[in-house]
Amino acid sequence: MDFKILKEMLDNRDFVRLTHILKAMRDADIAEFIGELDHKTALLVFRLLPKDLAANVFSHLSSQRQSELSMLVDEEELASIVEELYFDDRIDYIEEMPAYVVKRILKNSTETERRLINQFLNYPEDSAGSLMTIEFVDLKKHMRVGDSLKRIREIGQEKETIYTCYVIDSERRLEGIVSLRDLVLADPDVSIESIMETQIIYVSTYDDQEYIADVFKKYGFLALPVVDQERRLVGIITVDDIVDVIELENTEDFHKMAAVQPLRESYLDTSVFKLASKRILWLMVLMISATISGGIIKSYESALEAVVALTVFIPMLMDTGGNAGSQSSTLVIRSIALGELAFKDTLKVIWKEFRVSILVGLPLALINFFRVYLLEGYGMALSITVSVTLLVTVVFAKIVGGILPMIAQKLNIDPAIMASPLITTIVDAISLIFYFSFASWIMGI
Amino acid sequence: MDFKILKEMLDNRDFVRLTHILKAMRDADIAEFIGELDHKTALLVFRLLPKDLAANVFSHLSSQRQSELSMLVDEEELASIVEELYFDDRIDYIEEMPAYVVKRILKNSTETERRLINQFLNYPEDSAGSLMTIEFVDLKKHMRVGDSLKRIREIGQEKETIYTCYVIDSERRLEGIVSLRDLVLADPDVSIESIMETQIIYVSTYDDQEYIADVFKKYGFLALPVVDQERRLVGIITVDDIVDVIELENTEDFHKMAAVQPLRESYLDTSVFKLASKRILWLMVLMISATISGGIIKSYESALEAVVALTVFIPMLMDTGGNAGSQSSTLVIRSIALGELAFKDTLKVIWKEFRVSILVGLPLALINFFRVYLLEGYGMALSITVSVTLLVTVVFAKIVGGILPMIAQKLNIDPAIMASPLITTIVDAISLIFYFSFASWIMGI
Repeated sequence: MDFKILKEMLDNRDFVRLTHILKAMRDADIAEFIGELDHKTALLVFRLLPKDLAANVFSHLSSQRQSELSMLVDEEELASIVEELYFDDRIDYIEEMPAYVVKRILKNSTETERRLINQFLNYPEDSAGSLMTIEFVDLKKHMRVGDSLKRIREIGQEKETIYTCYVIDSERRLEGIVSLRDLVLADPDVSIESIMETQIIYVSTYDDQEYIADVFKKYGFLALPVVDQERRLVGIITVDDIVDVIELENTEDFHKMAAVQPLRESYLDTSVFKLASKRILWLMVLMISATISGGIIKSYESALEAVVALTVFIPMLMDTGGNAGSQSSTLVIRSIALGELAFKDTLKVIWKEFRVSILVGLPLALINFFRVYLLEGYGMALSITVSVTLLVTVVFAKIVGGILPMIAQKLNIDPAIMASPLITTIVDAISLIFYFSFASWIMGI
Repeated sequence: MDFKILKEMLDNRDFVRLTHILKAMRDADIAEFIGELDHKTALLVFRLLPKDLAANVFSHLSSQRQSELSMLVDEEELASIVEELYFDDRIDYIEEMPAYVVKRILKNSTETERRLINQFLNYPEDSAGSLMTIEFVDLKKHMRVGDSLKRIREIGQEKETIYTCYVIDSERRLEGIVSLRDLVLADPDVSIESIMETQIIYVSTYDDQEYIADVFKKYGFLALPVVDQERRLVGIITVDDIVDVIELENTEDFHKMAAVQPLRESYLDTSVFKLASKRILWLMVLMISATISGGIIKSYESALEAVVALTVFIPMLMDTGGNAGSQSSTLVIRSIALGELAFKDTLKVIWKEFRVSILVGLPLALINFFRVYLLEGYGMALSITVSVTLLVTVVFAKIVGGILPMIAQKLNIDPAIMASPLITTIVDAISLIFYFSFASWIMGI
């Protein structure tokens, strides 16, 4: 979005018109606008907003901006913002704040709220407990549809969603689910029990968010109930939060597959030290593993002394092997993540990758032979060596790339680490061994 | 899910109990069960389902399974399934079917339906037009809330969603949006006009699904209206379809970043030829580019003849350069995809990557020096050459990895192609040039 006009109003201190326009804008757009301003101007604009709008906008700000604003306002103002936030947004916010801001917030909360906040802060990050909100509509099964709608009218305003309502017994155990759609379409005089869905899909507070996202994807829900160990309803998770979870999980996979330890903050908000720390471990492990390839070359030093030209093709063989392997591993890793492949399919994957690798490897080897022998005029023996090695490398790379993610999943290791970097390192070594052995044999060196 | 009991019932031909259980199951679970059976048993189970349930289950089947079933049933049965599908599911289904199945379907449709289907089939794949459904609730602004609720009760049953309703004028131009939440919470006597949202976010039929997903992510909508060039409302897109779009777009990025042309079908459903065809082009381009590195080595053949040991470190330098570059490019590509980075941030990225690369490269170079000089006993000159090259390679790789995706985006090229494979090929060449130049200089060869 382009906020030029708004910025001009700020420069001209035309706050009346600015407030008027802000009120007509969407929360996410106002947050984007505030995100582009410096701290002080951001606070100024933020203070122009009516209280409830301010809270909605606040929940859309980046955690860095939230933290800056929290430090600039006084305790009373902070308390009133926090008060207005939906409960799950409030928890997200408190989780991200520095300790002394959290202290200020807790100081201004009631005893009950404090206990509830502490309970939520104790759920593991990425668990259903840390994602859920407590602001849902609960009904009893003996209620009539008409009365239920009346209840929704009374309490619905502060609820995160009213589109799915939860039927609980006197001990808060989940007995059924009824959608607002069913309520609106039903006869007002029938009981909730007669229209509620009793085959309930629910998750537990400690379930991981990746699993929860899979449930949403499979069933297309708008909300999902969260129960504790006694099957008592403790919260709900809504689909808008799941969209964020899906992107987050994908980002983690992208990072892992590039040998970066997953990073939560946005790139620009992450410090140089943190960025470095997330990268150095894997780089070091892979650098040390890559010395194996060096060791193989070293053991064939005499062959290399005899035919220095062998060295010329090492980069091409290594790169093609790495690329062929990472193509296969990426396809397989992604299919596992989407639930399309499981360990039982391993033989199918091997057989498929074998055939693909022949189909892909043969033309590559032929083109390579043409180039090396005819265009560059190397000897027949060397040209054959390079081309055969290329084919073998592609076949081997594709099978390793297909099989390792499957094994990882079976061993409960994240398949995403079996991606390009690790596969490349493994394929390099095998490719070089074959290259030099074959060269020694065919060229008699 | 484990379908053992259901399969036993099938073996015992206990269809009464099986039907009973199926009716209590969720559409997605029944579809999963049918997906595990052979064609004929699948059809048998499918025929046990009541008509409306059958249609819902059908929309959850994989397109391969849909196609198999479509060929097994007669025309009448096919027509009745298609009839019951939601309109967007119907279009998805027709798009995937072989031509003669499509013909059979169109033959059994009314003239109006046929025209509508053809219109939808003409929207580009991945456009709002191909994603949207026409089954939504429309209201007029002069209606009262109470009457609107009555209308929803009358027509709501066949609508894909009733949670967002659309206010249109006599020419079907979109005037406002009102949520069922607002309708339920409002006084039944007020007019729709007084409660409708008029600051409408909408998309056009030709907008790309990636952009639409971004709109959903930003605003957290449950549904989004789609208008034609005259701003007439032609359909809506619901959030459950967007969840699929997000996964699909991520899958495409994963594939592109591994130098695979994007693949839509699941891995196991894709033929070996198709899998090979999606991989060979990039492998070939990258193989040919990698010969540049070979050419560099060739031009330094005399240096290599003098110090064959130089070859030993080529794999380690190439792998580390590739990994360092792909870490940076992946982080930047992902941030661009999430809208966190834009071209204007290029200088920030370069400066950040420069500092990170020093922080990461120095320890790597030191460890490498320790290993090469002290542990493996190579000479001082060679050890320095390798370690300095390593540092320079990491710095260069990270800056190239950070900068190329930004440039790609500026040039309207998909940043995802600036990933590991291409970066590796580029970094290899530069790294080798530096390696040999530095070696020649310091070792006087």
